[in-house]
Order: sequence, then structure tokens, then C-alpha cells
Amino acid sequence: MEIKTEIITIGDEILIGQIVDTNSAWMAEKLNNAGISVYQITTIADNREHILKTVQAALDRVDIVLVTGGLGPTSDDITKKTLAEFFHSSLVLNEEVLESVRQRLEERNIQLNDLIRGQALVPDKCQAFVNEWGTAPGMWFETNGKVLVSMPGVPVEMKGIMEKYVIPNLKLKYKLPSIQHRTLLTYGTFEAHLAELLEDFEKDLPSHVKLAYLPSAGRVRLRLTAKGDTRKKLTSLLDRLEKEMMERIGEYVYGKNGDTLEQIVGELLRKSGKTLSTAESCTGGMVSHLITTVPGASDYYKGSVISYANEVKIRELGVSEKDVITYGAVSREVVEQMAAGVSTRLKTDYAIAISGIAGPTGGTPEKPVGTVWIAVKSPEKTVTSKFIFGFTRMENITRAAFTSLNMLRKVLMNESFH
Amino acid sequence: MEIKTEIITIGDEILIGQIVDTNSAWMAEKLNNAGISVYQITTIADNREHILKTVQAALDRVDIVLVTGGLGPTSDDITKKTLAEFFHSSLVLNEEVLESVRQRLEERNIQLNDLIRGQALVPDKCQAFVNEWGTAPGMWFETNGKVLVSMPGVPVEMKGIMEKYVIPNLKLKYKLPSIQHRTLLTYGTFEAHLAELLEDFEKDLPSHVKLAYLPSAGRVRLRLTAKGDTRKKLTSLLDRLEKEMMERIGEYVYGKNGDTLEQIVGELLRKSGKTLSTAESCTGGMVSHLITTVPGASDYYKGSVISYANEVKIRELGVSEKDVITYGAVSREVVEQMAAGVSTRLKTDYAIAISGIAGPTGGTPEKPVGTVWIAVKSPEKTVTSKFIFGFTRMENITRAAFTSLNMLRKVLMNESFH
Repeated sequence: MEIKTEIITIGDEILIGQIVDTNSAWMAEKLNNAGISVYQITTIADNREHILKTVQAALDRVDIVLVTGGLGPTSDDITKKTLAEFFHSSLVLNEEVLESVRQRLEERNIQLNDLIRGQALVPDKCQAFVNEWGTAPGMWFETNGKVLVSMPGVPVEMKGIMEKYVIPNLKLKYKLPSIQHRTLLTYGTFEAHLAELLEDFEKDLPSHVKLAYLPSAGRVRLRLTAKGDTRKKLTSLLDRLEKEMMERIGEYVYGKNGDTLEQIVGELLRKSGKTLSTAESCTGGMVSHLITTVPGASDYYKGSVISYANEVKIRELGVSEKDVITYGAVSREVVEQMAAGVSTRLKTDYAIAISGIAGPTGGTPEKPVGTVWIAVKSPEKTVTSKFIFGFTRMENITRAAFTSLNMLRKVLMNESFH
Repeated sequence: MEIKTEIITIGDEILIGQIVDTNSAWMAEKLNNAGISVYQITTIADNREHILKTVQAALDRVDIVLVTGGLGPTSDDITKKTLAEFFHSSLVLNEEVLESVRQRLEERNIQLNDLIRGQALVPDKCQAFVNEWGTAPGMWFETNGKVLVSMPGVPVEMKGIMEKYVIPNLKLKYKLPSIQHRTLLTYGTFEAHLAELLEDFEKDLPSHVKLAYLPSAGRVRLRLTAKGDTRKKLTSLLDRLEKEMMERIGEYVYGKNGDTLEQIVGELLRKSGKTLSTAESCTGGMVSHLITTVPGASDYYKGSVISYANEVKIRELGVSEKDVITYGAVSREVVEQMAAGVSTRLKTDYAIAISGIAGPTGGTPEKPVGTVWIAVKSPEKTVTSKFIFGFTRMENITRAAFTSLNMLRKVLMNESFH
């Protein structure tokens, strides 16, 4: 039997267009991965009557109702008391929740006031999940064999409670079908091109396997979803299909599943015991930011010189002033000198250097907005390329950053393993 | 009378977590600005029965139903024929739509095939809106004084049809009230604390004004929504209320409405003709990245030294090696020397320096994960503070970055205007 979920999002922010609902997509992906399909997503305001009606309708439609939002300490947040009313439940002080709230406030030297204390009042007919990322606990209700879980709408809190409590508990309660996903991550070509290379592969896919193309910012993720067999059978089927895909599109694949370029590059550097530095102009620190989001990056990453101004390129990175004048700051000559300069200054084996025109202004007929030069220096050589991304400022910055990491990945792959 | 809308999104992509629903937020903002409130947003799959039920329920609840998605030419898209069934309407060829589709295909050298010709079949009980951005027309149905509009889900097509046809037609059909929003952006304290400071203010709010608290990552946005009077009256009411709020919580307010810290700081620097550099350790370039997302940042931002390794702090920023050993890299002494070093090296008026333990490892009993020292150097003085954020790695990096920009903002405000 298929287990169906409805996600209910409570709060004005989405209804007035102030924020985009990213929670639901995140939850839907986690649920699908666990073999639970999402039947409906409903967004409503903090309105008692509307909440009561919507919750009842959802429990009539589906097996599991996941509610997010409306759990803040202030008076406009009414989800908790409305759910207590719905389940004919009274609010009682939960000592475990109170203790966790108190502890976290203490660490931050904040006084516990009545509003925050109120967060530890929990309906007596639910199981409370301590929220280690905020103050409002998760609440698990059961009624007529169905489940309703209420969680805060703050993404980090919702995600923590989903991963630590909700998904594991749903897996315990329901017999879920086997679903397995396998995602190949590609960079450097277009969806339509990949579809062409995979045309015959797709036609021959067994009926219980689906292939989805998920493009975003120069990247295309290819996700295989297989359903129904035993876990073991699905794994070996996906192993075989992955191999067939790699034969066709391997040159564009940089990783699998949840990999990121910054993790892959970090792993390659760690394995080879080499170090990295960066010299960024138009990307303004984004490459450095991505690299340092990886825990333990300090083992291989020494730092960066963000040379936004030309004088910084010249003075701090040793770029020739004459070359800046002759070729311009966005040129092969300058970006190669930036890479050489930063690897010398910061004493690293590898270096990435980027110089480009992010826009919206600064473009010329010869060098339009979106023109970016990228150099990757290794102990053996320097690989330099010019790109014309030609999108918005943010898109240009993002594409340049990811492209530079992919270039470094290729250089590292060649030098480490061949 | 308040005019209420429901947005219905049809399609699998959101329900399996493949894409985030950005359409609804965009539509909600446009509708709110026009004085139409969104009562509910509902997302469902391409399923005939579920579509019929959801449309009926929506028409029972609200005055206007806006449906997006499920209008592609392929057989899995069933919205049009299901709506025709719902309205007891037959599909007839619409010459105007066909002509427009034909024209656009010609421009792109694409052959008109039966699938695409099918896009010009329109229910006879609706008014069709020619889609200049794609092939599926918009469809405006009226029933019992209520309106249902169906639009494609492709953002550029939906937006085009909304702006050119739907919003203007709704304004003609309904007498709409004025709605105005005013958002104050705060940093540096908690929702519950702000609620305490605003307790009496909130109690005295007129009944047609609502105050909402929207927290995210150390920031709390406070949004006033006023409805009903003339535009001019609402503006002067919100001006007065904003002033009253500023008297109570002004010290935490960094901006209004869509402002960002990086824009505000950039504006202050530009106005005063001063320059900025940064020296980042644990934030790894995020501050620099934020600053350079603002177009024209090169006018005031010269660059950064990301000194992830201690040797880079010492060699490139002139931090005393003895102090690094004595006080540790995460200390007042080191972060102040980083700020001094980078402003000297990059010849800037102002500098931000950050050193901390982002985690998950590297914490000690005296300096737990999340401990961050931040220094802001101005021509007049250096302001230094220690924070213990104590969240996840990403949360620590993000909070440290925003906190440093807020500290700089305060220093700039004091020195520019007092």
C-alpha cells in the first residue's frame, strides 16, 4: 500500500509573497527518498478556523500530515494551541523541553522569560521532540492509525527534527516500499546534449526505473529512481545502470548523489597531501567561501587574496602593471600571474585564479559582461581558459566559481592518478 | 469586502522535491500589492479526480482561483481537459491562439505538429489569453460571480500572462482595498526580546494593522501590514507606526523592506568616499562574497586576505607570531592585528577582521565551537567583540559574516553622521 503524506505550511510569509517555500521541496525530497509520496502541499495563514479545517481535510485524504510553522513564542503563532484544541488535548509543561531551552539560552547568556518558557508547554496527547536548533519542540500526534507531526518553520530547525526524529519514526511505523535513487552530477554540457547521448539507454530502461534531468546553473543532475524490488536487487540494478551511463556521459560526470565539487576537490587534495590557495577578482571570495564550507578544509586550504582592485593584483600578487594596462585585468596574462603570485605568496602546491566581468556594468564589445578568465596552477603546469557566461551578476559569479573548482578537479585527477 | 484568492499548482516536480515553487511567492506578491489577499496555496499532482476536488473546494472557499501548470502539449498534462470537464465545456479551435503559436514557431523554424496544434484547442466557456511567451494560452472562466484562471507553470509564461491580462482584469472586475506593508529589519537580538519591547505598541495597534515577526539566522524582520484606507492614509499611518517602533527597538534595526546589510554598508561607504578591505579566517571569504554581490562594489571594496592558515596571518597580515602562540589564533589580539594588517596592506580606510572556530572540530573548553572574534577598524578606532554562536558550521560562518557587516554598519553610521 502506498503511504501518502500532506505537507501543511502555516504562516503569512509565503501567502504575501515575502518568502519562497523551500521547506516543502526539501521535505518532499526526503520523504520520497524514504518511499513516502507527497500527495498535496497546502499553505495557509495563522488562522484558527482555517487550520482546523485544513488539518481535518488532510487527515481525511492521507496517512501522514506534516505541519510546519506557526510555533514562535509570540501571540501571532497559534499552531500549537490550535492543534491542542483539534486533538482535545491540554498544554502541560514538558520538563525535558524546558531544560533544553534553558541550557541553550544559558550558553548564550540570555534570560529565560515567560514567552520563551511558554515554548516548553506541550499538548499532553503528543510525543515531544526536543529541538536542539531552536526553542519550539516537534510534536508527534497519532489518531485513528494516522500521524500528524508539527514542526517549526525555521529551515534549520525543521530539517534537524525531520532527520533526527520524523523520518526514522515514520520508517519504524510504516512498512515502506524500497526506493533507491542514484544521481550522477554533471558539469559542462547541456540537458539536451546529455539526453541525446542517453537516448538509447533511456529507451531500454526497465519500467520500474525512471530517469530525471535536473538542470541548475550550468550543472545537470541525472537521477535514476528504482522502486519495488528488494533493496539488494535495486542496488545491483542501479550499479549496472550507472556503469552504462558512465560509458556514455562519463566525461561530464564530476560526482555522485550528494557530492559537491568543493568536497571532491578537498578529498583529492587531502589524499595527495597537497595544498591550495586562491586569487579571486570577480568572484569576490565565493570560491574561497565554497572551499571553506567543508569541515577540515584547513588541512589543505591556506587562504586567498581577493584582489578586487587592480592595485591589489599588482602589489599583493605581483601582477605586472604593464600587463594590466596592455591586456586588461580580464586576460590570460593577468590571471596566470595571479595564480603564480598567490601560490608563491601563500606557498601552496595548487592555485586557482579568476578575473572577469560580473556585470551588470563594465562590459565592452570585445569583453562583454560574463567574460571570465580562469587559471589553475599545479606543480606541473598552468591550465587557463576563457569563458563567456553572459548571465546576471550572481549567475556569472556562481558559474565562474563552480567552473574553477571543476577545472581544478580535472587537473587533480590527472596528476594524482595517472 | 475582502477579495480572497487561492493559488493551485498542478504538477509532480514540486511534490517529489525536484523544484522549489517560486511561482506562488511571485504571484502572491503581485496579488497582495493589488489589494488581493492569498488565502491558500495548494499543490497537487496531474490527477483528474484530485484536480476536480481541489478546484471545487477552492471555489467554495475563495473568490478567485488561479491555477498554474499541467498545460504542456504531452499526454501527462491534463489540466485543460479536466477544467473543460469541470465547467461542462467543449474544446474548440481558437484561431487567434493558433495564429500566435504558428507565428512564433515560424520565427524559430519549428514545424507545427499535431501536439502543438492541440494547444490552440480552448474550452468554449472561457476567455483565452494569447501566450506570447510560449504555446499554452491563459484561460479565464467565470462561474457564480467567481473567477478561475488557468495559466502555464513555466515562470516566464505565467508572469507574462499575469501582468498583461490577469492582474488588470481582476482590477477591472473587483473593487479592491489598499494594502501596504512596511518591514523593519533587525539584527542582534531575539524574537522574544523584541516582542517584549513592543508589547504595549502591539496592544495599541489599530485593528486594520497587523504586526508579524519573521526570524531567520540571527535576523528578525518585523512586518507591519495595513489594509483598507486610501493609499495616502495608509502611508502616513505606517510612517507614524514605524517611528514608534524605532523609538522602542531602533538600536536593533539595520534597514527597511528589501534592504540587505551588504547594500547598506556599501551605500554608507560610497556616500562617505571611504574604502574597505577584509581579513577573514573562519568565514573563509563569505564576507567578501556578500560585499561583492552588490553591483558597483569595486568603487569602495579593494579586496581581502583570507588567512585560513596561521602562517598566512603572520606572513601576509603581519600578525605577531608570539601573539598567535600566546593568545591563540582566535583572540582579541590576533583579530585586531589582522584588521590593522589588512587595512595597511590594502590601503583602505576601514577593515573587517574575523577569526573563529566554525566547527565541527577545533573547539576547546575555553573556546567552544562557535567562538568568533570580530574586529572592525576605522580611521578613528577599532571595535572588537567576541561572540559564541554555537550552531552548525554553516550557521556559525553565516552569523559571523552578517554580524561583522552589522558591526561595520554601526561604526559607519556613527562616524558618517554624528
